[in-house]
Amino acid sequence: WQPTHLFADWFLDPDELAGKFNSKTKAIIINTPNNPIGKVFTKDELQMIADLCIKHDTLCFSDEVYEWLVYRGHQHVKIATLPGMWDRTVTIGSAGKTFSVTGWKLGWSIGPEQLMKHLQTVMQNSLYTCPTPLQEAVAQGLLLNYELMDQPECYFTSLADELEGKRDRLADIVEEAGMTPVIPEGGYFMLVDVTALNQDLSHMDEDEAYDYKFVKWMIKEKKLAAIPVTAFVGEESTKDFEKYIRLCFIKQDSTLDAARSILKSWTKV
Amino acid sequence: WQPTHLFADWFLDPDELAGKFNSKTKAIIINTPNNPIGKVFTKDELQMIADLCIKHDTLCFSDEVYEWLVYRGHQHVKIATLPGMWDRTVTIGSAGKTFSVTGWKLGWSIGPEQLMKHLQTVMQNSLYTCPTPLQEAVAQGLLLNYELMDQPECYFTSLADELEGKRDRLADIVEEAGMTPVIPEGGYFMLVDVTALNQDLSHMDEDEAYDYKFVKWMIKEKKLAAIPVTAFVGEESTKDFEKYIRLCFIKQDSTLDAARSILKSWTKV
Repeated sequence: WQPTHLFADWFLDPDELAGKFNSKTKAIIINTPNNPIGKVFTKDELQMIADLCIKHDTLCFSDEVYEWLVYRGHQHVKIATLPGMWDRTVTIGSAGKTFSVTGWKLGWSIGPEQLMKHLQTVMQNSLYTCPTPLQEAVAQGLLLNYELMDQPECYFTSLADELEGKRDRLADIVEEAGMTPVIPEGGYFMLVDVTALNQDLSHMDEDEAYDYKFVKWMIKEKKLAAIPVTAFVGEESTKDFEKYIRLCFIKQDSTLDAARSILKSWTKV
Repeated sequence: WQPTHLFADWFLDPDELAGKFNSKTKAIIINTPNNPIGKVFTKDELQMIADLCIKHDTLCFSDEVYEWLVYRGHQHVKIATLPGMWDRTVTIGSAGKTFSVTGWKLGWSIGPEQLMKHLQTVMQNSLYTCPTPLQEAVAQGLLLNYELMDQPECYFTSLADELEGKRDRLADIVEEAGMTPVIPEGGYFMLVDVTALNQDLSHMDEDEAYDYKFVKWMIKEKKLAAIPVTAFVGEESTKDFEKYIRLCFIKQDSTLDAARSILKSWTKV
């Protein structure tokens, strides 16, 4: 297959982004690999963001929870490694995403002492501690896989290898059903453009965005679950995103096969 | 020994409390067994609070995390069981306190559906989930000990039996050292009045309350840790509480013995 949507379509306009910064700008939050669009920011793009942060003396909170889930042809870059960025960046990681244990509710922040001390104050006065038995397990998991780095058994990279096959399988399934996948460069979600289906949902609540209606209809009528993409965007962007839904492909192959069966019978109707 | 401080000294003045309620009062937060004072509210006291809640149509958040740690002669009463209170009360429990696993960060709220649905909204949008492997362990622990209820092996009650001995031991130790314990009716903390020691701390930062200075001095000079009680009170009450420190007696007997040794050599000096 040849994906219709390439990531050339999904980038920050440098002038538009620069126009959002001014003397009152305290911080920017970035997310790479990105949920939901699956984009992995290039070093050049991150440099463009870093230049703005430095020019405007702005903090950067970099959500990199999918840092290990990057597919062939792409590379994860930590913005904190760019010149001048360590001192102004808090990098956020996730045990749940790194080790596929999202129910464990553990993660970490990495940054310079003068920023971390404030995060520690907030932590001390809100959550107070993390679940200690799970912290120990995560610490052991990090040590073990650090030792295994660059070997096939290393979970950091073996999970991405496994997921790349699932990504391609789901893209095939979606295309067979007449929808257009946006092939993700990282993460385990795939945006799908459902425009071509021309599904008439005019009988549903008209106050809702199309993707919300589509997802509800699909769950109820087709027993397939997805997330509406406009849940991630501001009101002014609803029109740009309401024909997209977000599918998840970190699933057993049998689950993906079941999705294929559902979609095959769907297109026959 | 005969404790100097009885709980007759620690009660809510009905007129003062009633004076705090008006048409704008949304809720009251209560805590029984109480941290730090170790008081277990009687049914009559809770009825007085309940009457005010009902009269002023006020919610009640009842922190009962030490519900099982109640000592002989006292009984834990859930305010939600008083007539008219179920519908307006959220009762808070703790796996950490119930099973002595405070690092697990798990608890629960109990209340009527029309209140719980709002807690679920907050939960969904803040913590999102609790650590699932630990939830399973807590669920099994609750089931097991529910089956064992009223038997000596039931952890709910056996822990309190064990702690009552430690409470009395710590009270002895504290009195031997010339301080005055407030014997707790519940929980695993003991307030201690350090007035009689007449410890001169005038060389320390005079902007701090006496208990903060005393605790810092004791940790540094005597290697004994405690919590300053004014950390729990409003500024207007600092003067009433700054001669109290809070000790913890959920400790190995060997730790309590070490505290006794420290305090013995201390009083000799």
